[in-house]
Amino acid sequence: MSAEIISVGTELLMGNIVNTNAQYISQRLADLGIDCFLQTTVGDNHDRLVEAVHRGLERSDIIILTGGLGPTADDLTKETVADAFNRKLVLDEPSLVYIKQRFAKMRHIMTPNNIKQAMFPENCIILPNPNGTAPGCIVEDGTKAAILMPGPPNEMVPMFEASVLPYLEKRSGYMLKSKMLRIFGKGESSVEYQLKDLMQQQTNPTIAPYALNGEMKLRVTARCKDGEDADKIMAPIIEEVKKRIGEYIYSEDGLELHEEVARLISASGMTIAVAESCTGGMLCSKFVSVPGSSNWFKEGCVTYSNEAKMNRLGVKKETLAEYGAVSAQTAIEMAEGIRRTAMADIGISTTGYAGPDGGTGDKPVGTVFIGVAAKDKSFYKELYLTGKRERIRNMACLNALDILRRNIF
Amino acid sequence: MSAEIISVGTELLMGNIVNTNAQYISQRLADLGIDCFLQTTVGDNHDRLVEAVHRGLERSDIIILTGGLGPTADDLTKETVADAFNRKLVLDEPSLVYIKQRFAKMRHIMTPNNIKQAMFPENCIILPNPNGTAPGCIVEDGTKAAILMPGPPNEMVPMFEASVLPYLEKRSGYMLKSKMLRIFGKGESSVEYQLKDLMQQQTNPTIAPYALNGEMKLRVTARCKDGEDADKIMAPIIEEVKKRIGEYIYSEDGLELHEEVARLISASGMTIAVAESCTGGMLCSKFVSVPGSSNWFKEGCVTYSNEAKMNRLGVKKETLAEYGAVSAQTAIEMAEGIRRTAMADIGISTTGYAGPDGGTGDKPVGTVFIGVAAKDKSFYKELYLTGKRERIRNMACLNALDILRRNIF
Repeated sequence: MSAEIISVGTELLMGNIVNTNAQYISQRLADLGIDCFLQTTVGDNHDRLVEAVHRGLERSDIIILTGGLGPTADDLTKETVADAFNRKLVLDEPSLVYIKQRFAKMRHIMTPNNIKQAMFPENCIILPNPNGTAPGCIVEDGTKAAILMPGPPNEMVPMFEASVLPYLEKRSGYMLKSKMLRIFGKGESSVEYQLKDLMQQQTNPTIAPYALNGEMKLRVTARCKDGEDADKIMAPIIEEVKKRIGEYIYSEDGLELHEEVARLISASGMTIAVAESCTGGMLCSKFVSVPGSSNWFKEGCVTYSNEAKMNRLGVKKETLAEYGAVSAQTAIEMAEGIRRTAMADIGISTTGYAGPDGGTGDKPVGTVFIGVAAKDKSFYKELYLTGKRERIRNMACLNALDILRRNIF
Repeated sequence: MSAEIISVGTELLMGNIVNTNAQYISQRLADLGIDCFLQTTVGDNHDRLVEAVHRGLERSDIIILTGGLGPTADDLTKETVADAFNRKLVLDEPSLVYIKQRFAKMRHIMTPNNIKQAMFPENCIILPNPNGTAPGCIVEDGTKAAILMPGPPNEMVPMFEASVLPYLEKRSGYMLKSKMLRIFGKGESSVEYQLKDLMQQQTNPTIAPYALNGEMKLRVTARCKDGEDADKIMAPIIEEVKKRIGEYIYSEDGLELHEEVARLISASGMTIAVAESCTGGMLCSKFVSVPGSSNWFKEGCVTYSNEAKMNRLGVKKETLAEYGAVSAQTAIEMAEGIRRTAMADIGISTTGYAGPDGGTGDKPVGTVFIGVAAKDKSFYKELYLTGKRERIRNMACLNALDILRRNIF
């Protein structure tokens, strides 16, 4: 079975955004064993979209289109595909009801052009879009099919996983199962170096590494026919990976580092409080992003100034004077201070130079201290981070989480 | 002048890597005012590459190819382009010398297949590659040209900047200038609805809308010849856009909402402090992400629990009992409390149900109150947001920033 990908959107042709959709879909097709011979990107232009759709349907069994499902006159994907299959566009009442409800819930006025998002080629399969107003659809004719999904990745990816993947599995006769190993503290090239032979030999299961905001993911995917045990196919390779880089793997079920730490805190029955200087709320925000965090997250203080460190957390004036705000001593007093004032079991703190200004000779921009206060011990870790302000702040948060994971639980 | 991009490489079709080359080149073409109507990705496959090259040369003045210049039998780009232009491949002696030197320098043995990297279509322009062994080239015939560059971005980008860009500037004779209007509080379909006629009539300048994490951007782009004034071309359309949706436009120079609010606070000479419940540090983090925020950002408290709201901010027990933590009254007491305890000029607060659990009959998940306390007034705004926890938290922050922008400065 063969497929090709047609990405629709002038913003792609203008280079405003990078086409991560094409990569995502290609990867999933490869996992399924569906050949993908071509990716095409066209703008919101009728003639060129028509050519891409027609040539795509000649060459491949399935064409997968993303983008151009919106409410404006520019959005032509459904019209073009309907033409190619000789179908009319008809109103899908349930979709219209859903779109209306969505607007009502947001208390926005639904302009008339939004009705277009509920129009579909006759006799197609509608794909729900829980994350946006434009549902997708699948149009079939004999052995050919066109799959239409919205362009924004946060809408496309969940739709692909929930609706398109089961459809493709059914057509291909194969099923996929993946495990996502998540890794912190080891760079992409270092992971690849240690797993090179495994990655080169791979056929089933496959291993694919991804770098992501200072973390790494390793997706192990088994392809199997109905009745085969995907876990059995994956087990030997996962065991080998763990033998080589196990200490850096913090989750096997796709949880992000802050989610895994949240799970550990929650399971321990303890509570945590956070005092942030250079990360400025980012670490709190990662904890609070986890549903149910109110059960174990006590509170946070963003104490950016020296006064705030003294007033809110009881950091001593002498400590700040003698060692400076960016120091091991201040980090520990911040952690102990937030633990005490918030009456939490664990206190954690960050203080550092995130740049672009600040820093001193022996503590340049990128120097960050993480302080931890627990029932029977206080300690700190000193980090030397590189990159811009946002990267330094993010890496400080990830390191703080990793320190909790390795030392507290 | 028109161009299209052909990316060659099976690793792109397998989804192993994301195609950043296509984005980079597209962006530079847009800057130059060269129309890019199509991007195609093909594998290392002779027939499909031939089709892409031939159709590309029919449709566009210039085709830009990346990848497939390496030493292996899989690398077919030069062969295919030479065929399309009816040229032979001939050895370029200076390139061979360069490749030999490079191998010697790395102390690697040069296998015979590397000679292939010094073979080029007759009468082409050779593009040096200081970062790899495969030089690029430009093949011209009448009004048509093919530009061939290597696939690795660290080789392609420097080659593009050093050799391809000057070539394209000379050919096009055009320059581009863009202004980015940033919009909050109005959805994509609503913006497009109000600007529909402008967008349909557009030729020069052009208007392009983009939705982005709850915000909107509108790019106005003028194309001009040397000596023409791009700002003059853009002025009338920008004025008309402002007449229609001016109150929603918060910046014209590409600043994000939190950066613009940071600019306003900084310019006012005032200071701000933040008390967050449902946004849990995200609003603080947006402020602290701006370099120099220590001058005007006093501090923040993430008071998720009722105790923290009372202890840190002085929210009254009776207020929480009578109106609840998610209420206008609590939002205002939080804002006034953080303003007072942090000794700031402005206090701002968030409290709401971010989900997935929580919420009540008349205050469902997505209900958020923003409180503001300034010298002479305290007020609140009630929001009804949709989506998942992270979206609700992000939209609450953006609304808080917009409230500051509209009401304080």
